[in-house]
Amino acid sequence: MKFNKVLNSIKTYEAGKPIELVVREYGIAPKDVVKLASNENPIGTNPAIAKVIRSHADIAHLYPDDSMFELKAALAKKYNVEDTNIIIGAGSDQVLEFISRAVLDENASVLMSGVTFAMYEIYAKQMGAKVYKTMSHEHKFEEFMEAYNMYRPKVVYICTPNNPTGDATSKEDVIALIEAMGSDTVIVVDGAYMEYAAAKDEKYRITPNDLLGYDNVIYLGTFSKAHGLGGMRVGYGIAQAPLIKELYKMRPPFNITTLSLRVAIEATKDDSFVQQSVALHQEQIKRYEAFADENSIGYIDSYTNFITYLFDENLNSSHIADALLKRGVIIRDLASYGMNAIRITIGTEEQNSTFFRHFSEIIA
Amino acid sequence: MKFNKVLNSIKTYEAGKPIELVVREYGIAPKDVVKLASNENPIGTNPAIAKVIRSHADIAHLYPDDSMFELKAALAKKYNVEDTNIIIGAGSDQVLEFISRAVLDENASVLMSGVTFAMYEIYAKQMGAKVYKTMSHEHKFEEFMEAYNMYRPKVVYICTPNNPTGDATSKEDVIALIEAMGSDTVIVVDGAYMEYAAAKDEKYRITPNDLLGYDNVIYLGTFSKAHGLGGMRVGYGIAQAPLIKELYKMRPPFNITTLSLRVAIEATKDDSFVQQSVALHQEQIKRYEAFADENSIGYIDSYTNFITYLFDENLNSSHIADALLKRGVIIRDLASYGMNAIRITIGTEEQNSTFFRHFSEIIA
Repeated sequence: MKFNKVLNSIKTYEAGKPIELVVREYGIAPKDVVKLASNENPIGTNPAIAKVIRSHADIAHLYPDDSMFELKAALAKKYNVEDTNIIIGAGSDQVLEFISRAVLDENASVLMSGVTFAMYEIYAKQMGAKVYKTMSHEHKFEEFMEAYNMYRPKVVYICTPNNPTGDATSKEDVIALIEAMGSDTVIVVDGAYMEYAAAKDEKYRITPNDLLGYDNVIYLGTFSKAHGLGGMRVGYGIAQAPLIKELYKMRPPFNITTLSLRVAIEATKDDSFVQQSVALHQEQIKRYEAFADENSIGYIDSYTNFITYLFDENLNSSHIADALLKRGVIIRDLASYGMNAIRITIGTEEQNSTFFRHFSEIIA
Repeated sequence: MKFNKVLNSIKTYEAGKPIELVVREYGIAPKDVVKLASNENPIGTNPAIAKVIRSHADIAHLYPDDSMFELKAALAKKYNVEDTNIIIGAGSDQVLEFISRAVLDENASVLMSGVTFAMYEIYAKQMGAKVYKTMSHEHKFEEFMEAYNMYRPKVVYICTPNNPTGDATSKEDVIALIEAMGSDTVIVVDGAYMEYAAAKDEKYRITPNDLLGYDNVIYLGTFSKAHGLGGMRVGYGIAQAPLIKELYKMRPPFNITTLSLRVAIEATKDDSFVQQSVALHQEQIKRYEAFADENSIGYIDSYTNFITYLFDENLNSSHIADALLKRGVIIRDLASYGMNAIRITIGTEEQNSTFFRHFSEIIA
């Protein structure tokens, strides 16, 4: 057998360590494990959604409606777009995969910020495309345009707010980038954490409709973060209908589960849980900022449901992540992103207190 | 924007019409709709599995364990293989996609029987590969070897039992094909409906272990059919570890949901529901055979949970499918496969009686 040569250069995604693994490997009781590694919603599953799951538990044998008629109608209403503007993925991740597969090949390149969501690079490399990154982790206009003019990438990724750093790019700056780039480049505006940025400062709020005037721009959203449905794997892309139509050709049938379809429909109609999630987050993140200030630790001003602590040469992010892990606290080491930093999901009051207690002891 | 040229030739999968659509389009009450189109398990969801879903409804916010440690352990035990021999997909469909993406390109070709699972062709065309089919819908040794020697395909698909026709290829004949082909070709043995074939006649029973001696062969299985979990999207591929390792490079993280992971673990450990499903099926399919004989309708001897009725020039499959649909009975017209035939999922006693009543009136 001969495998495609692109496989030689593919690294796979490093997922946040699951609680089960820490229980198995370190013998810590599940109740003592605090996972602040995957930006899961600390409130848990919306009780209204859990109810929907329970009441549909007996239709697990039925394939979902592959047209996703109801979910698209609900999203179309929420965002004031047409159903032909929408494609559903198993997480917005899968929409990224559709985009890669629809436009990239071994002669193409993609452009993204210096530190950003790892799957952009992985999906691009799966297609054999070259990957260019700007110097900064922020989305800086000059850096993007310099690289854009040099490489003419077929896809540009704008992750706002940005993961795993937490910074955001304003709507004005995003529009400026779109206007400055040619319409032969697909521009992905990944708003996976948009609910948190929009609630913090209106100038960072970007809605699909803000971008629908451009035929080469696609907005990505997800139910995984503020909606608290990471485990259900539902996200979406919103763009002009001709672009959506092409992406559909890479969509496998039944790409979300029957239960995922039901819960996403309900979640789209109910915004109260998102508001509750954002409110808890806004209250708790202040503790992380205060703790960092008190301990002279740098951090990136966050527009997401996590915060990135930046260490100087006295602290090593990998050592700290390991020490926390052995105590049952799972956070994300950003060493593999070239940063001496850790990313911590803002948890519940209790989870955050547990983090501070262990972290204080480790850095003492 | 310029899309990859393979998109020009891609047709998308035509899913069985969902009940919701028939309700919407024909104004038929949901309770009066009988769907025998997607080979869903007519018993419904295993009550033990529905219980697992209900008891895990509150962890929808958590990502699944991306290592799938427990599920692989359960499958490894069931099939007496190692966990390194296993890859999990969102349905065995997704494993087909991994295979296509790992080995195919625009210079490659694939080979399959004349009528078989539509996704083989769709995934191959997504990669720009050429698609060759044998004359017969059965997997005939001479036809396969003639085409194999002529085209040297990079992937050969053996669907046994075969969908959408229902015929099966014996283990002896599958092994003969594998032995006759070179090890530079990946041979996919798709056993999505294997539980039904194995229960009908031992000579059709193929287990992953029967094939694990070949480094180029992968066995596919699914929880969608006999296990009654079509809506949960879980399937798997079992092969030698080096092949699995390459396919993993195309696997996106979190490719099944948290609930799907839980139910698949439970389903692997519990075979009683499969036995119950097969028993109902074996009892009810006799009615379809008797009905066909009484009405001089041809059919393919079925090793799956559906039956294919073959019509002569007096009956038109598309007209019959339409007439049934308007009465709320959804079956699959095989006209798009070049056959004047319909595929009917074997339902419950009541569903089957409803089908016979409407079908009798239509052909009267």
